[in-house]
Amino acid sequence: MTDIYEQSLGLHRERRGKLEVRSKVDLKTRLDLSLAYTPGVAAVSTAIGKDRDLAYEYTLKGNSVAVVSDGSAILGLGNLGPEAAIPVMEGKAILFREFAGIDAFPICLDTQETEEIIHTVKLLAPVFGGINLEDISAPRCFEIEERLVRELDIPVMHDDQRGTATVVLAGLTNALKVKGRTPDGVRVVVNGAGAAGTAIVRMLSECGFGDIVVCDRQGIISRERVDLNPYKRMLSDATNPRGLSGDLARALVGADIFIGVSAGGVLKPDMVRAMAPEPVIFAMANPTPEIMPEEAKAAGALIVATGRSDFPNQVNNVLAFPGIFRGALDNGVRRIGNAMLVRAAQNLAFCVPEPGPERILPDPLDREVAGWVASAIR
Amino acid sequence: MTDIYEQSLGLHRERRGKLEVRSKVDLKTRLDLSLAYTPGVAAVSTAIGKDRDLAYEYTLKGNSVAVVSDGSAILGLGNLGPEAAIPVMEGKAILFREFAGIDAFPICLDTQETEEIIHTVKLLAPVFGGINLEDISAPRCFEIEERLVRELDIPVMHDDQRGTATVVLAGLTNALKVKGRTPDGVRVVVNGAGAAGTAIVRMLSECGFGDIVVCDRQGIISRERVDLNPYKRMLSDATNPRGLSGDLARALVGADIFIGVSAGGVLKPDMVRAMAPEPVIFAMANPTPEIMPEEAKAAGALIVATGRSDFPNQVNNVLAFPGIFRGALDNGVRRIGNAMLVRAAQNLAFCVPEPGPERILPDPLDREVAGWVASAIR
Repeated sequence: MTDIYEQSLGLHRERRGKLEVRSKVDLKTRLDLSLAYTPGVAAVSTAIGKDRDLAYEYTLKGNSVAVVSDGSAILGLGNLGPEAAIPVMEGKAILFREFAGIDAFPICLDTQETEEIIHTVKLLAPVFGGINLEDISAPRCFEIEERLVRELDIPVMHDDQRGTATVVLAGLTNALKVKGRTPDGVRVVVNGAGAAGTAIVRMLSECGFGDIVVCDRQGIISRERVDLNPYKRMLSDATNPRGLSGDLARALVGADIFIGVSAGGVLKPDMVRAMAPEPVIFAMANPTPEIMPEEAKAAGALIVATGRSDFPNQVNNVLAFPGIFRGALDNGVRRIGNAMLVRAAQNLAFCVPEPGPERILPDPLDREVAGWVASAIR
Repeated sequence: MTDIYEQSLGLHRERRGKLEVRSKVDLKTRLDLSLAYTPGVAAVSTAIGKDRDLAYEYTLKGNSVAVVSDGSAILGLGNLGPEAAIPVMEGKAILFREFAGIDAFPICLDTQETEEIIHTVKLLAPVFGGINLEDISAPRCFEIEERLVRELDIPVMHDDQRGTATVVLAGLTNALKVKGRTPDGVRVVVNGAGAAGTAIVRMLSECGFGDIVVCDRQGIISRERVDLNPYKRMLSDATNPRGLSGDLARALVGADIFIGVSAGGVLKPDMVRAMAPEPVIFAMANPTPEIMPEEAKAAGALIVATGRSDFPNQVNNVLAFPGIFRGALDNGVRRIGNAMLVRAAQNLAFCVPEPGPERILPDPLDREVAGWVASAIR
């Protein structure tokens, strides 16, 4: 890992970032200048001034996405501020380009006030066809996404929530195929009740997973807990049907599926052994998973997925977000509904022709995936 | 012109805008993904989290400029709103790329409130190495530029003010060479007291032009006028040394130089005939100049400059803004001072080896110009 870090620092320093803005038109002659800029552009501005929807046809708006962060929850690193978010948002922007041909640009805001973020994104919206929120800490991210979805007329998605949930659902769908099980018959434990955990629970609930228990750092989220914020309170109402209380180890007894969006090393081999036979482990903490795949396998796990590219079954959001926005932009989708994302997850699952324990998700580099995901967003 | 407009609409529709965002790094292998995105990017974010100035080295910040407008004064078209500004800002962005290798991105704000614009630009600043304000109406543009220059630690320039003034000063410098005159001996009339007019007056005053008279739609700006906003009041204090009052025609009697940043057709041949012999006419209203070059020549003008590419002596901001920001970015300039712009104008004037009546400014397509301008900004 140290080597990857050193190489990555070297790459970023050498290139001074990863993204560039280029012209799609020639600027060699006076005529070129007259058409791309003044005086010709006056006709385009005049037309859009009369009908602002023409911006989708005459400008980059129809193909552009803002990748917006406040730097409050950068990867697993925490609150490092807006400048530290730039390399991640640049990275997402080039993935948008490479996998879905989208012109995405990083917007890193120098504020972490909920209302100010909402207001600023609304003021920025005219030039963009969609808004991808990223690395904004919970619980602020919930209100920010909800409000922007409601108050803007372009699609808005917080990728750490709904993009992650889409890929997890796809992976779980294939994991259940491998195990020959259905959603209603399995017990799921989600460890982590932040942005990703909350969104995963919501999506699994909608897809018929009836027995979900959620844990945060204080243990099982139950109705007895008095320390819950409103979002965790909603989770306590919607999950934990058997009324468990206690710690993560307690929650996992007899469980079929562990979904970790928490911290490195928190899942111990003993806990895996206490789960139902041949459990499914999604250990997505980055860069160190909740349990290393070889340890989980040794403790009896049948399927292990992580967020890492150096193990099989990588849960990588790049499988979802480029296609989701491609579909939204191409089909004039103003709100990315959960039903669309469930369909996208199904399409994503189908991209693996024969799922097996080492292959429940497509390769993140598979260029076909985004098109299949996009076709679900309409 | 109709033909140019139709062709421009066709070009914009066919390409869906003019700008694209691309990756500067490969994304073909797992290693590529690991270096450009997770996990490698974590090292870059961590480093910037500790020292935010590293964003200049590791991200696009060191080479990026936001082209910001509120759509309130688009070209000569007026207040058409933020969507209508997109094609112009996209046009500027690709000119930044083509002439100075800068990654510029259009930001079109859905507000025309001075404080809200200032605040929003400040919140956006982390990802940008510079801010180019554009097509924001006077007098709001003065406070917006002044405040952002003072309150941000990256260079900010309102191009309609200071970019235009730089090119005008360069053109005038060569016009005076052609005429064998010096700034202190000439009488100048500036028609138009908006963003461009005000900035031109300020820069000419700093360069020794002692006899400047400014007119707005109500006529000569003098201390007797009671209808002046604070910015015009400042102009009335700094100009009009002979205490003239009356209309534009009155101001022009005996003047050597007319600088129009006003409206098409307002300069009549009779007014040109009333000027000093062989006057210099800058008729920069777009797309229709204050007077057509052939009319001005017929009335005795020696030198005529316009904003148009189909006549000689085009006053085009593309001669200045790419080089100004190139120099600011390369030399770590946090404030673009007027002294730097005066030097830039001198360099720009020197780009014409032998000035003549039909050649007081370089060709806007000359790729050498930006480098000379950049060398002045340090």
